Amino acid sequence: MKRASFFPLDIGSRGSCTVGGNVSTNAGGNRVLRYGMMRNLVLGLEAVLADGTVIDATHKMTKDNAGYDLKQLFVGSEGTLGVVTRAVLALHPKPSSQAVAFCSVPDFSCAIELLLFLKGALGGRLSAFEALWSNAYALILESVPRVRAPLPVGSPLYVLVESLGSDPRTDVPAFEKALEVAPENNWVTDVVIGRSTREMRALWEVRDAVSEAVLKLRPFISYDVSMPVGAMDLFASSIVERTARDWPGAKIGLFGHIGDGNIHIVTDIGADGTPRTVVDEFIYDATRAARGSISAEHGIGFQKRAWIGHTRSPQEIALMRAIKRTLDPDCLLSRGRIFPIDAAG
Amino acid sequence: MKRASFFPLDIGSRGSCTVGGNVSTNAGGNRVLRYGMMRNLVLGLEAVLADGTVIDATHKMTKDNAGYDLKQLFVGSEGTLGVVTRAVLALHPKPSSQAVAFCSVPDFSCAIELLLFLKGALGGRLSAFEALWSNAYALILESVPRVRAPLPVGSPLYVLVESLGSDPRTDVPAFEKALEVAPENNWVTDVVIGRSTREMRALWEVRDAVSEAVLKLRPFISYDVSMPVGAMDLFASSIVERTARDWPGAKIGLFGHIGDGNIHIVTDIGADGTPRTVVDEFIYDATRAARGSISAEHGIGFQKRAWIGHTRSPQEIALMRAIKRTLDPDCLLSRGRIFPIDAAG
Repeated sequence: MKRASFFPLDIGSRGSCTVGGNVSTNAGGNRVLRYGMMRNLVLGLEAVLADGTVIDATHKMTKDNAGYDLKQLFVGSEGTLGVVTRAVLALHPKPSSQAVAFCSVPDFSCAIELLLFLKGALGGRLSAFEALWSNAYALILESVPRVRAPLPVGSPLYVLVESLGSDPRTDVPAFEKALEVAPENNWVTDVVIGRSTREMRALWEVRDAVSEAVLKLRPFISYDVSMPVGAMDLFASSIVERTARDWPGAKIGLFGHIGDGNIHIVTDIGADGTPRTVVDEFIYDATRAARGSISAEHGIGFQKRAWIGHTRSPQEIALMRAIKRTLDPDCLLSRGRIFPIDAAG
Repeated sequence: MKRASFFPLDIGSRGSCTVGGNVSTNAGGNRVLRYGMMRNLVLGLEAVLADGTVIDATHKMTKDNAGYDLKQLFVGSEGTLGVVTRAVLALHPKPSSQAVAFCSVPDFSCAIELLLFLKGALGGRLSAFEALWSNAYALILESVPRVRAPLPVGSPLYVLVESLGSDPRTDVPAFEKALEVAPENNWVTDVVIGRSTREMRALWEVRDAVSEAVLKLRPFISYDVSMPVGAMDLFASSIVERTARDWPGAKIGLFGHIGDGNIHIVTDIGADGTPRTVVDEFIYDATRAARGSISAEHGIGFQKRAWIGHTRSPQEIALMRAIKRTLDPDCLLSRGRIFPIDAAG
């Protein structure tokens, strides 16, 4: 019997991204909670080193402890260690049931309670838990007129919840039952459940519309930080408060993948002439204070290389450089990415 | 509200292993199917390099793409690149329902059908799918008298199936229903479902008793290979057939984690004076022919280093050595492990 499979990675650029790009950046996205990042979905790969050596590590095993797991070097290293030319990807059974809900949540701690509760109640079926802070929700509704608000504005936080399962007859009732319990516990103030494929798609469109909304910001600056989940609430409040105080006319929106400790921040701070480095410093100082990472899923590239010391220790950076020098001594690959330019790459 | 968590790694040496050992060997075991190997459960770590540098990578984020994921270097490298001194581990919600069944299965292709079916039918709840070939089952029953056979001998294959979920009221009926379908499809010839914690434990004890059974083999040789799942059946038959032909008095038992492509082989070939290298060559030649790995989860250590070329290309080995030289130029750490001794380590 042949069963349908699917590749579960789901990111905003799903229409234009490439497998090579997903591997090089260790792409994440909406379903990391359930299926992991690209790193967890690559079984093997082939990479070409700077000296032309072809590393054929196109292994097809989940388990392989025969020496170093070399593919880990190439996943997420942004092309700086080798050019990935082939990849063996892990597929998952294609789900046959989907359930989606959109909730308003009174505060961050309720969102965490809801997440932990749903992780338990839905077993392995919870596939997304996507948060929109009130500012991001407002930004979407004012910038993308075709999006209709599933719930009134005014709640501090909104969460899109998704379950993917294999039996619509039992999965959907289990999902609805779990979300019925949530308001009783005061974790949720209101909830809309998608009753059809079309309604579920409409709920996802609210979340996805954020990428369209941000394009209207001038200038448009975006951040992609992560931190221990317990540090997120204070981080988010401090960002919003300082923005309101120091840049009262600026727009800012926060959204992200709470289960992964990942917050995206979009803003037009800088419209008043504030230099970009001042905004970067504002966000990355707060990220460092939260013991977080300046890049959860987008990578360092050129833009963030000056800030890598905010998130990695001098010893870590020295070790990264040593590996880079070993694999690419003449710095031929992805030159200038990841590492600051003030020292030999 | 406080919810119970658990660390899901479950291996035969659960009573004596250490976190450091689990990290260094990238331990796997019975629940990799659901929770991944140790690599997937380590969020961050601290390692001390050969020159005394402390690499503090005790990050606590699921997502962190700020430069190279250095922890990947230390997980599974058997202490050859650094001494792991601290680790940040990911916990999972503690399951509140368990269901276990023991099945006789007519052939390998039926086992695969059953696995794919259960992956779908149980959604994310399937937590173990452990196979015992008839020879391993017989070995257990004859060597460990306290184990009572849950099913008669004579079937080519036996499978222990486990579901871990969050709602006993729905999970257990779903599990039983799924296993009712299986005989109808002829994937399973007989099935015993554990009706109590005690019965479930007894079924697990059959599987676990294999480590006790093998201790009675003289000599006792064990292998831990992996390969693409589609190659396992032919591999297993060829091993059993050649053993019967060339070493007719020898005992051999096959068992493992089918979902991960991982087969363990235990044998007393060599009781007739056959040198160990001949037995190694027999198993590792067959593994190479299957495009497999000579170590799925136990690592290379000293014993398998002469065979690493059966599973990794010269280019891969050269790259591993280059990394080893970069991190430990004087070869101070885990000297002689992983790499053959016929060249500079």
